[in-house]
Amino acid sequence: VFPRRVSETTVRRLSLYLRTLERLLEEEERHLSSSELAERAGTTAAQVRKDLSAFGSFGTRGKGYPVADLHLRIRSILGLDRPWQVALVGAGRIGSALHAYPHFRDRGFRIVGILDDDPAKVGKRWGEVRIRPASELEALVREEGVEIVILAVPAGAAQPLAERAVEAGVRGILNFAPIRLRLPPEVEVNDVNLAVELEAISHVLAGRDRSRHRGLDRSRDRSLDPGRGWG
Amino acid sequence: VFPRRVSETTVRRLSLYLRTLERLLEEEERHLSSSELAERAGTTAAQVRKDLSAFGSFGTRGKGYPVADLHLRIRSILGLDRPWQVALVGAGRIGSALHAYPHFRDRGFRIVGILDDDPAKVGKRWGEVRIRPASELEALVREEGVEIVILAVPAGAAQPLAERAVEAGVRGILNFAPIRLRLPPEVEVNDVNLAVELEAISHVLAGRDRSRHRGLDRSRDRSLDPGRGWG
Repeated sequence: VFPRRVSETTVRRLSLYLRTLERLLEEEERHLSSSELAERAGTTAAQVRKDLSAFGSFGTRGKGYPVADLHLRIRSILGLDRPWQVALVGAGRIGSALHAYPHFRDRGFRIVGILDDDPAKVGKRWGEVRIRPASELEALVREEGVEIVILAVPAGAAQPLAERAVEAGVRGILNFAPIRLRLPPEVEVNDVNLAVELEAISHVLAGRDRSRHRGLDRSRDRSLDPGRGWG
Repeated sequence: VFPRRVSETTVRRLSLYLRTLERLLEEEERHLSSSELAERAGTTAAQVRKDLSAFGSFGTRGKGYPVADLHLRIRSILGLDRPWQVALVGAGRIGSALHAYPHFRDRGFRIVGILDDDPAKVGKRWGEVRIRPASELEALVREEGVEIVILAVPAGAAQPLAERAVEAGVRGILNFAPIRLRLPPEVEVNDVNLAVELEAISHVLAGRDRSRHRGLDRSRDRSLDPGRGWG
């Protein structure tokens, strides 16, 4: 049983569960309980049971979930039971960090081509991959069967490059450029904005500071309350 | 009116609204409708109205939302009405990309210190900031009033560095290390895992492929159905 599509936050949790299951497989553990999985993934046992029941995986009372089976099911639902050919468009600092990121390859995302517009970069090798001029985007997509593009270019260059990639057959784009791409709805776009990740933190910290100040204000108000004090 | 805390997906949308409002301020637009904001942020007008009503900002019928007021409110709820002192721990490829990321400074996140363990890196300058040895973490946090740490170190180094940062007074951690940090609940941790961002795409593409195959299987079944055909 596969639901057509689960929410983005569920995908994030499934990915954490998968990491735990990979470790347990290495340790040759056969079963784990929802509460063990919850503890390792930083969520609740109820949430784990809900997430896993949604795609028809049920633990056995007393034994828990079978590790190997659950691992295969989650890999499948995340689309990781097959490799993905990925092109990296943009060989700047973010592109370089992404290329060196070890967990893409672990999960079956193969960066089979790197493109950049800068003549100083074109022709250089990053690992086994030679940087090609951006004009070769279509050729790369067709030759290598690229289905996903990681777009790590400035805002101004992103839209035309994304359109060319889609025209050549790309189905998904991980977009690091700070613009909203306008593409046909059948193209799956995921925007990554690292400032938003810091804002998720500053929002919470600022909220706590506001509550604390409100608390202080209130106690100050009370001390000035004519109905209290010495009387 | 400030809700104590809004959901992570709402924070993401608020951040997109803010980007739109910044652009409109530059263009000296005074008002915008929920549908205009929705269109620019890639969501629905109903969602915009819901998000904004949650913190007491109401548009005027026929005129829409006041751009300048909404801009200030969203900045405030995201904690962006004050600067944040940030330390970058880890001067590798990801650290380098994050340091060069222009949108942190735009939003008031100031990287006031960079730390690394590698003697080949210590002492070098990135922009105005000199890379210091990791042993100076506590000193840096206290001298500069660092409240947020960006942790871009290998998995094995992350937990002890995070504990030291918290001990010295850090309240929030943006964690790029692929482990779950165990820290007191009052520390706000946001884990960034770039493989998960690709998995959000591969999940959707794989789901579509499965539906398509099911569709093909079904039509094949029908063509073989003895109850159909010539009869």
